[in-house]
This record gives sequence, structure tokens and C-alpha cells, in this order.
Amino acid sequence: MAYFEFQGKNVYYETHGEGKPLILLNGIMMSTKSWGIFKEAFSANNRLILLDFLDQGQSDKVVEEYTQDLQVEVLHALIKELNYERVNLLGISYGGEVALRFITKYESLVDRLVLFNTSHRTSPWLKDIGDAWNLSRDNALDYYLTTIPVIYSPEFYNRNREWMENRKKLLTATVFSDKNFMDSMVRLTRSAETHDVTEDLKDVRTRTLIVSSENDFITPKEEQEALHKLLVNSDYVMLPKTGHGSMYERPALFTALTLGYINASDLEMTVL
Amino acid sequence: MAYFEFQGKNVYYETHGEGKPLILLNGIMMSTKSWGIFKEAFSANNRLILLDFLDQGQSDKVVEEYTQDLQVEVLHALIKELNYERVNLLGISYGGEVALRFITKYESLVDRLVLFNTSHRTSPWLKDIGDAWNLSRDNALDYYLTTIPVIYSPEFYNRNREWMENRKKLLTATVFSDKNFMDSMVRLTRSAETHDVTEDLKDVRTRTLIVSSENDFITPKEEQEALHKLLVNSDYVMLPKTGHGSMYERPALFTALTLGYINASDLEMTVL
Amino acid sequence: MAYFEFQGKNVYYETHGEGKPLILLNGIMMSTKSWGIFKEAFSANNRLILLDFLDQGQSDKVVEEYTQDLQVEVLHALIKELNYERVNLLGISYGGEVALRFITKYESLVDRLVLFNTSHRTSPWLKDIGDAWNLSRDNALDYYLTTIPVIYSPEFYNRNREWMENRKKLLTATVFSDKNFMDSMVRLTRSAETHDVTEDLKDVRTRTLIVSSENDFITPKEEQEALHKLLVNSDYVMLPKTGHGSMYERPALFTALTLGYINASDLEMTVL
Amino acid sequence: MAYFEFQGKNVYYETHGEGKPLILLNGIMMSTKSWGIFKEAFSANNRLILLDFLDQGQSDKVVEEYTQDLQVEVLHALIKELNYERVNLLGISYGGEVALRFITKYESLVDRLVLFNTSHRTSPWLKDIGDAWNLSRDNALDYYLTTIPVIYSPEFYNRNREWMENRKKLLTATVFSDKNFMDSMVRLTRSAETHDVTEDLKDVRTRTLIVSSENDFITPKEEQEALHKLLVNSDYVMLPKTGHGSMYERPALFTALTLGYINASDLEMTVL
Repeated sequence: MAYFEFQGKNVYYETHGEGKPLILLNGIMMSTKSWGIFKEAFSANNRLILLDFLDQGQSDKVVEEYTQDLQVEVLHALIKELNYERVNLLGISYGGEVALRFITKYESLVDRLVLFNTSHRTSPWLKDIGDAWNLSRDNALDYYLTTIPVIYSPEFYNRNREWMENRKKLLTATVFSDKNFMDSMVRLTRSAETHDVTEDLKDVRTRTLIVSSENDFITPKEEQEALHKLLVNSDYVMLPKTGHGSMYERPALFTALTLGYINASDLEMTVL
Repeated sequence: MAYFEFQGKNVYYETHGEGKPLILLNGIMMSTKSWGIFKEAFSANNRLILLDFLDQGQSDKVVEEYTQDLQVEVLHALIKELNYERVNLLGISYGGEVALRFITKYESLVDRLVLFNTSHRTSPWLKDIGDAWNLSRDNALDYYLTTIPVIYSPEFYNRNREWMENRKKLLTATVFSDKNFMDSMVRLTRSAETHDVTEDLKDVRTRTLIVSSENDFITPKEEQEALHKLLVNSDYVMLPKTGHGSMYERPALFTALTLGYINASDLEMTVL
Repeated sequence: MAYFEFQGKNVYYETHGEGKPLILLNGIMMSTKSWGIFKEAFSANNRLILLDFLDQGQSDKVVEEYTQDLQVEVLHALIKELNYERVNLLGISYGGEVALRFITKYESLVDRLVLFNTSHRTSPWLKDIGDAWNLSRDNALDYYLTTIPVIYSPEFYNRNREWMENRKKLLTATVFSDKNFMDSMVRLTRSAETHDVTEDLKDVRTRTLIVSSENDFITPKEEQEALHKLLVNSDYVMLPKTGHGSMYERPALFTALTLGYINASDLEMTVL
Repeated sequence: MAYFEFQGKNVYYETHGEGKPLILLNGIMMSTKSWGIFKEAFSANNRLILLDFLDQGQSDKVVEEYTQDLQVEVLHALIKELNYERVNLLGISYGGEVALRFITKYESLVDRLVLFNTSHRTSPWLKDIGDAWNLSRDNALDYYLTTIPVIYSPEFYNRNREWMENRKKLLTATVFSDKNFMDSMVRLTRSAETHDVTEDLKDVRTRTLIVSSENDFITPKEEQEALHKLLVNSDYVMLPKTGHGSMYERPALFTALTLGYINASDLEMTVL
């Protein structure tokens, strides 16, 4: 519903509702449109802010190569644009990585952080997975089959046959056949290749909720366990029988965990 | 801060704050006083209601034997006393069992339900554990050592040595040496012996959050997995490296999960 | 070291050592040569029999499409060729699926069965994964990146960088660039598409060891849990922090579990 | 079937079969008689050696207090008595602790080591559990209820009602009512209180199999994960849905894992 300019590019964002500000940071294939089902609940008591990173949704394309630090600055510019002193951030996967990088540079701007299915680094294993995605870019069905099944838990994918088959038809016929979209996907994927904030996280003190999924085959739960050890003030919870796309497989838990964590007046209680 | 009469007994309860009503149902050894650290956060946006079951805290003792259905009626009387049409319930362990029994009888009075470390039945294994507790009742240290270590994850118990040692001294010197308290504990334990709502849960449709702990040695995570299968509209999440006393070991997660689940304006979103 | 004829095709097999016969059934990309490191230990006290399925290793290619039932008959012909009344079978992944199909048809020929990383059916999810493999067949690097990283646990893949990079070079330069090999891989993958013995397993009584890997992203541990429930006389064990290629990641456990299970004089002991 | 003298005490042991020597080290409540169902399988291809530690079974009582190092010397004396240069050791729980202590002192005498449900140290948590056991010593039923249910997985305990009830009757009527036996149990429990070989294990290079149980509520799986990290040449496997008494709940897996690991001609194979 609005744009701001960043380094000569137009960046798209939306705001909904009133209350503590909460910015949602998209996964790599997502856009502001992906949050439709959550909009009502997330804006009921909060100022909900949706953002298309560069190369996503209604924001401009980038053309040249870049790293996720570009998106960090996009996020920073958005916060300045909206004139917030502090915001809450939720990131999932790619968006969680940007959030982690953001916090190592602009920690004072963040109140609380919620991370679903997020890694603190792109391991050689994950980089090779990303390369497999990129090498399938010229064939819409190949791209679908290489990227989508692994995003879901087998249980969810098998149970919701009709919905998945419809998505297969839709995605292969539209976005995965769109050269511009696929160029963006390749650039976004590459922008995450060098991600590694292992060392930087040791100084972070932001209160952070880390959520893993038992059947996450992209950023396996071991990644979130490692992240939990790196982040001093973090809390960790696990979604059983759930895949990488936790927001779609467990929308109620996604909602309750995020809003509960962001809106609690106090999280520092302890019996000790 | 207030009492109401139930079958000639005084029942103690407290109310704090304003908003959607949320009644907290104590674990077996707990009382309204156990919630001290949570009071601020839980009453910030909700009408928080604390309750001492009969034989707990400042409510009257019972003397004769009873089942948890007596506590179900206590809870029902409280809701009537407060004149609520619908409430939200949070139960942990014993309190979760009472909540489950309540919902099978008075489902229309409940909006949403949150269950931590709760079983749908007292298995022969759990009954024998309870008998071990009761047989240790005449020796305060024996009672402490039989009941307390297994309530915590070994990791928590070992890490917080000083706090646990202080609790050992305090509990053995006071409540576990108090014959009246111990009589109550034995009755409360026995009141749960026949608990089994396996069949009744099949008709329940209340939106329910089920939380298990990976290192729960009283109501192991397999119990919550079974409960999740029995309850049609339930969501399930697991707290890694946490024991039965999840509220004390993970107070931030306990708070965020409960308030997020109870207060979300909508939990029915779905991509399907 | 030897061939026998099956339906006009040459089938390659090897035998090593003396003792209870144990036939190893290859995963889809494997051949008799894949077992090199295990040969000594597996033939020390057993008659070890290695087999290249049709379209694998030194056995003939098939050309036309087929199902895994063709391999079932190859295995049956091998047992007849060797004149065994009963054999022990070990299968991993594709080989485990053939073993499961074999047992539903020729149960009387099998003494004990050991299954690593095996599913009782090719789910829609797994079929789509297989289709992604086949669609990458014309590009050796794409095929490598689509099939190999997911076979290993991220931890193993990341730790053994040099070995994995050498495999990448070797596989992309040789077999994955070999049209004949790739044609075989596509046919083998398709032959498993219709695999589903869910119903047939209910009558099986063969003593079976089922082994899952915690980080198996091809046949996730939930598949082996389901298989364990289907197979009355099965035992189930899980390899923590291990991927689909358990034989390579945990060769000592692979060896001990298989030989211990096959060679125990008695497995029917019970305290009950 | 035989005794040897150790520091003026008689120590009972048995030998069965021929082959590589394998000494089984009892859990705390066990004796040579506990291995009845395993004797045939374990002696089929091995020299099986059973041992009653001091204060167990048919070995002499000790009277004064001691640590597990006394049992280490008993084991050492047995190996000398039998004139073995190297033996294989299997320990479960208390027996595993003695085995771990033995290896830090007499590593050259051990070929391979197998540890079920074993901790490298008695944590404050476990010490308090032990104290609860000892404080229940004067009441046979209390002792049963405090020690036995937690040894089994709830699933096993609940499913085998008749067997468990018979054991309850038998144990409370006999051994748990026998002052001499109970005196021994208290001493044995105390002998493990100071167990901690965390530092010493760093130098151990013995090939070791570590087996945990998912529902072990005495030595939880986290203990074996820690042990696996401490022992350089260790392999780790987990028994799903199994309790502390893994030998009774999963006798086939117990047998296959032990014999397979001890008897494999080679466990050093690696693809790297």
C-alpha cells in the first residue's frame, strides 16, 4: 500500500492495525501477499508491517549480485521511514537470516526477535542445496519438484494432495515460468550463500524466540539448537511433525508463539 | 483475596487485571501463591483468576476421600460465582487433568484451553508413582527426594544447585513436615488415581494447546502425543530439554505460549 | 565374480566367506562395488552374497520400464541359483524396498531381515522427489546437487568437505555424465514409483530389524516408525545425527547391527 | 559355578561357552541370575562370563562403606583369575559405571566396551534419586514403588500388567523384605555417589558402543549423548520408546547390538 525509495529502488511495504510495531520478514519465495491468512490476527493488537525485500513481490528488482546485507539496509531504511525507535522482528528462513544480520549491526533498534526455521550460517550443505535450486531454474516443473516438496513435511505434503497438486499447477504455470521471477530467485538464493554470523552473535543480548520444526529438511532442527546455544537471551521450542514451512503447516502455533512472545509485558520472570 | 462457599467449604481465589478471563489451574503441590512471578504478565491484558482447589493453599481441607470431579465442580462454581459465560483455562499437570474433565462436562463454558504436562488418564505406571509419594509421607526428606527431583529436568536441577538446596531445606522444614499439608497431598494424589477421560475426549471440539516437555518424567511427552491425537482441534508443541515443572524451567515460553494462544483474535487461519 | 542368466539378461553377483548366507541388497545408486569396506567384516563368519540388480553395476541394462517386482524375481532366481533353502537379507533404501516386496511373496525363503532407511511405500512426496531427480538427469552437476547432499546428514556433509568435494568431481565427471548410467538411474527410480506393500505386510512374521536415521531426509524416521507398527515381529532402533546414507556415516553401527541380528543364535528371549 | 577370593571375600562368577571372552557387568539390583534368558545366545559363540559384584547375588557382603573402585578391583581380580590378556566388557547402568572406571585404570586389558544406560558421573540429581531409594529401605512396598516403575518405560509397565504385578508381589515378599539384601542395596547405591570420570575419559581410546533409551528416567539419553562426546572412539545408538531396563524391554536389540559389536572382525572401516 506504500513505497519508499532505497538507493534509487522502490521498496514496497504495508502497515495494518495499531499497537507495538511488528515487522514480518519473508522467506525467500514469499512476498507481502504470503501473509494474507495472518493479517487479521497479527494486526488485531499490533502495528503489523509487511515488507517485500528487493527482488521480492512488488519491490524493485536488483539485477546485479548482492548479499543479504543489502536487505539489512532495506530493513533499516524502512524503520527510519516509519520513524520507529524500536521494533519487533519476525523472520522465517531467509527473513530470519536477514533479521539475525540486522541485529548484529542495529541491535538497539530491536525490542524482541522471533525466528522460525532460521540458520546462523549457510553451511556447505545448504549452499549446495541452493545451487541445485538455481540449476533447475530453466524448467518450471523441475524447479517446483526440486524446491517445494522438501519445504513441507512428508506428512503434510501427502495428506493435502489436492492443495499441493493445485499449487504445482499454479506455480509451474505462472511464477516458475516467469523469467523475471526466476532471475530474482537465483539472485536471492545467491545473496544468502555467504551468510555466517556465528562469531557476531556472541555479543547479542536481544530477547529471542527460536522455533524449529522436527521435519525441517532445509534448516534442520540441529541448526536452531546451535543458534540457541549462541544466543544468550534466547528461548527455544520445537514443533513436532512439522516441516520447513511451519507458518503454513502450523498457522495457529505460528500465530500464538509470535504474538505471545512479542506482546508479553514481561518475559524476564524467573524462580531462581 | 476472596472466598466463595462451595458445599459448605470456603474456596479461595484471586482476580487481577482486566480483559479476557483466564483461570489458572494449579498442579498438585501448588497454590495461588505459586503464580507470583507470572501475575504481572498474565494480568497485563487479561482478567487473571487464580484458584486454590479444595485441599490446596487457602481453600478448606476436605477430610474424606474424593475424585477430581469434586474439583471440577469447584471450578464450575467459581465460574458461576464470577458470572462468566465463557472463560479460558490453563492447567498444568493436576490442574490440566481437572481442565480436561471439566471440558467433557461443561464444554460450552470454555473458550480456549491450554494444557501443560497433562495426561488424559492416570496409567498404572503413574498410579504406582503416586503410591510411592504417599508411602513417603511420614518422612519430610524422603517425601522431598521422592517427589521433587523427578519434577525437574536433570539439567535444570543440576545447574541450579543453590536454589534447589534452599528449596530442600525450606520444604522439608515447613510444608513437608506439616501433617495437615501432607494429609492434603495424600488426598489430592488419591483423587487423581481413577482419572481417565480417553473415551470422553472424542467429542470435544474446544481449541486446545497441548505442551509437552522432552524430559518430563511424570507425564512423559508420549502422553501429550496421545492427547493430541484424541483432541480434534488441538495444537501441539514440545519444549526441548525441559522437565515436568515447565512453568519454572521455561517461564518465558510458558507465558508466551499461554497468552499468545488465549489472546489471538483468530486461530482458525489455514492455507488449505 | 559370477553371472547367472535371468530372462535372457546377465545378472552379476559375488560370494565371499562361509557361514549363514547373507545377501546385501543395494540402494538405488549403489552396486556390488559399494560394499568394499564391509566385505572383510561381513564375510568373516558369513557367506556374504553381493548382487547387482538389473540396471545396476555389472548386471545387464533393461531398456523397457519395469517395477521393483522384476528385481524381486532377480533375487529369487539368485537364491535358486545358489541353491539355498533360506537366506538372510539386508536391504538399504531401494534394496530394502525390494526385500520387503520379496518377503510378501517368498517369506519361507527368508530367515531374518535387516532394513536400513526403508519405506513400505513410495508416498506422493517421495515420488515427487524422485521426479526431481529424473528431471535433472541431463546435467551432471545438477543431478549431483539434487541427489547427493540430501542423502547425507548436514553434519557429515559439512564435516567431510574434502571427501565430498572429491566425490562431486568424480561423480559429475564420470557416472553422472554417462548417458547409459543415467538412463539406468531414471528406470530404477521409476521402478519404485508404485511401491506400496502396506496391506501385504500385515501377514508377515519374519523377524525383522528396522533401523532409521534421525536426519534421513529421503525416507524420514517416521517411515520406519510406521513400518515397525506394520511388522509384527520387528525390532526398531534409531541412529542419532545420521543421514539416509547410514552405511557410510555409521559403518561400525551398520556392521554391528546387521551381523549381530543375523548371527544371534536366539532372538526370542523374553522376560514376560 | 565358581568362586575366587578377593581381599578375604568370596566372589561368585560363572563361565559359559567358548570364544572371545565377554564379561557382563550387572546393574545395581541384578545378579548373575538376571542373565538367564540371554545365556544361550551370549555363549553360542563367546566365552560368556557372569559376575556378582561384592554385595550382589552369591558374592560376599561388604559391611563397611566403599566406592565403585572396589568393584573395579574385583573385576580386575577376575580377569587375572581367568588369565585373560584382553576381554570385552558389557555394562548396564551400575555395571557400565564400573566398566567406565575400569577402562580409565586398566585400558590395556579391554578389547571392546559396550555400555547400556550408563552415566559418566552421578549428578546431584541422580544422587538425590539414590537417596530417595535408600530412605525407602524399611518398607518393602515403598522401596518397590520408588525404584521399580521409574526403571521401565511407562508403555512397557502399562502393557505388561500381569508380569509387573507378579514382580511386585514377589519382590516385596522376598528380597525387598530381606534386611541383608536391603543393606547391600543401600551400600551399593552409596558406592556410586561419588562417581565422576568426566576428566579421565578424555584419554580413553577403547572402541565403545553407547546405547541410550528414549524413555530412560534414571540415566536419561542426554547422559549418553554427553558420554558419546567425551569418548573419542565411541558409536552411539538410541532405542526408541524404551526405558532404563533396556535389556528386559528390548532383549533382541540388546543381544544383537552387544554380540554384533563385540564379535565384528573389524569396526574401523570408513569411506573417508
